[in-house]
Amino acid sequence: MSKVNQQTTAESHALVTYDTHPDQYAHWKLSVDGPVATLSMDVNEDKGIRPGYKLKLNSYDLGVDIELYDALNRIRFEHPQVKCVVFTSAKERMFCSGANIYMLGLSGHAWKVNFCKFTNETRNGIEDSSRNNGLKFLAAVNGTVAGGGYELALACNEILMVDDRSSTVSLPEVPLLGVLPGTGGLTRVIDKRKVRRDLADVFCSTTEGVRADRAREWKLVDHIAKPQQFADALAERTAELVADSSRPDSAQGIVLSPLERTSDESGLRYRHVDVAIDRAARTATITVHSPTGDQPKDLEGIHAAGTNWWPLAMARELDDAILMLRSNELDVGTWILKTRGDLAAVEQMDALLIRRRGDWFVKETMGFIRRTFARLEVSSRTLFAIIDAGSCFGGTLFELALAADRSYMLATEDEEEQKPEIATSMLNFGAYPVVNQLTRLQNRFCGEGGPVEAVFNQCGERFDAASAMKLGLVTFAPDELDWDDEIRVAIEERASLSPDALTGMEANLRFAGGETMETRVFGRLSAWQNWIFNRPNAVGEQGALRVFGAGSKPKFDWERV
Amino acid sequence: MSKVNQQTTAESHALVTYDTHPDQYAHWKLSVDGPVATLSMDVNEDKGIRPGYKLKLNSYDLGVDIELYDALNRIRFEHPQVKCVVFTSAKERMFCSGANIYMLGLSGHAWKVNFCKFTNETRNGIEDSSRNNGLKFLAAVNGTVAGGGYELALACNEILMVDDRSSTVSLPEVPLLGVLPGTGGLTRVIDKRKVRRDLADVFCSTTEGVRADRAREWKLVDHIAKPQQFADALAERTAELVADSSRPDSAQGIVLSPLERTSDESGLRYRHVDVAIDRAARTATITVHSPTGDQPKDLEGIHAAGTNWWPLAMARELDDAILMLRSNELDVGTWILKTRGDLAAVEQMDALLIRRRGDWFVKETMGFIRRTFARLEVSSRTLFAIIDAGSCFGGTLFELALAADRSYMLATEDEEEQKPEIATSMLNFGAYPVVNQLTRLQNRFCGEGGPVEAVFNQCGERFDAASAMKLGLVTFAPDELDWDDEIRVAIEERASLSPDALTGMEANLRFAGGETMETRVFGRLSAWQNWIFNRPNAVGEQGALRVFGAGSKPKFDWERV
Repeated sequence: MSKVNQQTTAESHALVTYDTHPDQYAHWKLSVDGPVATLSMDVNEDKGIRPGYKLKLNSYDLGVDIELYDALNRIRFEHPQVKCVVFTSAKERMFCSGANIYMLGLSGHAWKVNFCKFTNETRNGIEDSSRNNGLKFLAAVNGTVAGGGYELALACNEILMVDDRSSTVSLPEVPLLGVLPGTGGLTRVIDKRKVRRDLADVFCSTTEGVRADRAREWKLVDHIAKPQQFADALAERTAELVADSSRPDSAQGIVLSPLERTSDESGLRYRHVDVAIDRAARTATITVHSPTGDQPKDLEGIHAAGTNWWPLAMARELDDAILMLRSNELDVGTWILKTRGDLAAVEQMDALLIRRRGDWFVKETMGFIRRTFARLEVSSRTLFAIIDAGSCFGGTLFELALAADRSYMLATEDEEEQKPEIATSMLNFGAYPVVNQLTRLQNRFCGEGGPVEAVFNQCGERFDAASAMKLGLVTFAPDELDWDDEIRVAIEERASLSPDALTGMEANLRFAGGETMETRVFGRLSAWQNWIFNRPNAVGEQGALRVFGAGSKPKFDWERV
Repeated sequence: MSKVNQQTTAESHALVTYDTHPDQYAHWKLSVDGPVATLSMDVNEDKGIRPGYKLKLNSYDLGVDIELYDALNRIRFEHPQVKCVVFTSAKERMFCSGANIYMLGLSGHAWKVNFCKFTNETRNGIEDSSRNNGLKFLAAVNGTVAGGGYELALACNEILMVDDRSSTVSLPEVPLLGVLPGTGGLTRVIDKRKVRRDLADVFCSTTEGVRADRAREWKLVDHIAKPQQFADALAERTAELVADSSRPDSAQGIVLSPLERTSDESGLRYRHVDVAIDRAARTATITVHSPTGDQPKDLEGIHAAGTNWWPLAMARELDDAILMLRSNELDVGTWILKTRGDLAAVEQMDALLIRRRGDWFVKETMGFIRRTFARLEVSSRTLFAIIDAGSCFGGTLFELALAADRSYMLATEDEEEQKPEIATSMLNFGAYPVVNQLTRLQNRFCGEGGPVEAVFNQCGERFDAASAMKLGLVTFAPDELDWDDEIRVAIEERASLSPDALTGMEANLRFAGGETMETRVFGRLSAWQNWIFNRPNAVGEQGALRVFGAGSKPKFDWERV
């Protein structure tokens, strides 16, 4: 189970960490059989990540989802020969009843939103692995599935449901709890599964749900099977998904060793990533360091380095830092992104990634980086990139600057070594798409081709502040005289604004030039859910979420707005 | 000025109506000179639609926007030779300072949301007229423009700004008020004007805004001109837009006569539309009647009929009914859509519309219908279509059933005349797109081609309940035995659910298969704004919106969620 320290932060909450290991899982069983990994959900109702509720009926909380995220990464890296992941339940007649409602009723607004976000990211990560890395997913729904349980199934390539005349599939959030299915359910039902929208309306507003036959008829599931044929159907569907996968037939896995992290009041330190928290200013400075020293140059060396290989180690650390900050440092509203080290070393690493991109481990590493950058952009924090002397924003690391809401680059006529430069690599042109599936450069220029082409034509060249400004790659380029003041004022000003207004503004501006299912989940659905999570009809004394299970009926203000 | 009766509804609010006329305008001056109409904003600060605030600095409230909506419809119908509309200000050095902040601070959540929605629809209507009817719009920004004033300019085809070294353009909502620019500003800046997203971030988080030269450099405006050259530049840009328009060179306008509406506690009655309100059940039954009696068959007859021509009269009445219900009947959460009359008469009218669609008046009438249907779908009310005996859901009127969240069609073996039938016409395949630019049939089937093609192949045929079910055109088809109970239970169940959860669910399910700028404005931006409008950081005792102008600074809870 995920470790929850009793150590308190400034906010007196238990620190949330994301470290776990299959040996410690309380809620999932991971078993691997050749090309098939089975993740059996078997939630221990007494091991909620916070006190005050029981995880009955295979319902989940953040702790259950932390284990799931860990398990998926183990499959990606430790079991490269796995081509299909099967989600199923170890409970009788209950696949998963969704997010635990008592937990939601007890939790504050920020906890609920953060929990939904992480859960969403894990579901999107499933689809990311399927789309980009050939790992296929099957939901083997061997009992009743409701709410977030169905939303997990929706993230899979296929859903096979048992047709036992009693198990049902439902999204009962609206009628039962007065909130939305918060993990992509509404969006995936119509966007991914193409369920006719009036049927979706009926489905999402009934508590009782539908049984297998109607579920298939309405396209809510792909296949159904009677209990006695379920195992055969499962084997058949799994075989087909395995055949459809591009993962290797056999390969030596890379063990994901525990992250080396030290943390105290002043921040977090990893090997390649450093987080310095300034609580008075409400900022966190996240510094990513370039590779140093000898780096592997061939596949043998890369595989031998394993989790110590810089691209994977850096991405895992950055990922963990983002999650830690999001869960534990709610008041720290501005993240300042910096890099330190050798631009040439970053460029060489990108060249190696490009050369070896056909290898499964390199590919999975780039997938991890891609998902980590995507996590950055759906974080409700202001992102400023500071490109100063000693920085190394090249290629893969330049994506950090492109992910930022704005960037400042030092313009100096100082001697060469003090003059920051940036550079793109081919990896900036497709390897790490934003969740709207545009590259960060396309997204930056709102889908306009001209400016992206200009950058592409100079791919690999180095740009000082003046050239970067000309190409539109940075926002501001103060000179040394103005640098300190301008950045100080910008950060102070930002930190003085309403955190809610900033969250809304950033969510609207970050995904320029197009929507996808993912942006619809994060932008549209999450925004409505945020609103509902703040309304008395859900969270007031007599709101639906609060009175659930207490035996009383909610009282609504009927005003429609 | 818009009439505000002191007559009270069940909620004890002053009734809001949308009837006005240029002779009564308090805030706008409409002048027409050949192909150019000029709308000069000259807000009378003492004539707010509600008491308690002054409309200083050309700021606006719902009353100002009701006049604007009226003026645009007058231009569309009464001045067909107008090819370009110029928005400008009659005030010195102030184009428009946006929505009135004191009004927002005084207003409840529902009023703010409803106001933003109507304002959004009018802006979208400007773009709709430009895209579909060849009417072009120029914002002649002759002074400082802020917030909603700039959002009005953003809806135009072009923005010309005076370069007088003092006038600025800004979206100061986030830094000044702790809310979002609520009328599409964030979306249009990146989606329509392709302002680089980091520059958009800077622009939207500074109160002071930018002057004309930087505004052009950042693509916030198209053209700038010194004060002494402004008139020439305006003439030049206007001439270009006039040349670009497809509106007629000369034509006799159609006068928009006042709507004949009677209203009381039980509902609203028009000539072709009837609204019956059941306050206990919190439902409104909106019945649209087919054309009756002799109808004009040629253009001469159509033009002679003018506002009495059924398609325009019906659409104006339905539009008014929607607006009246939205503003005055907040608790009435379910709208039941019905039709009554002769299906053949509806089909004949569609045939006439198709045959005469090249005529400017027919085209504008179809534009009015299109925008009215679009208004229906962004209304935060449940829409159920009831297709019963005596109904006439054909072609244009079948769009009402397609707009609904679900539909019920009576399955009966009764004699012919009691058996409801539906039919499509060619107008269902492109004339009235949803705001996501799909047809309602494409939207219904989540963008899948097959089911739409099947309907297209039988265009013009009539379908009973069984055939309609087979084609997926209706949701349920109860027989006579079940009909009353099934519909009663469905309506009662719907009315018992959380109005907020329903609003969120409907907003997520109604636009399947794709996003556009319009859906991003209504779905994404509005949802975030709704959330922010509910947060203490905006509306609490010390929230930014509440303390604005009171001399004190807002106090924020710094938690980022």
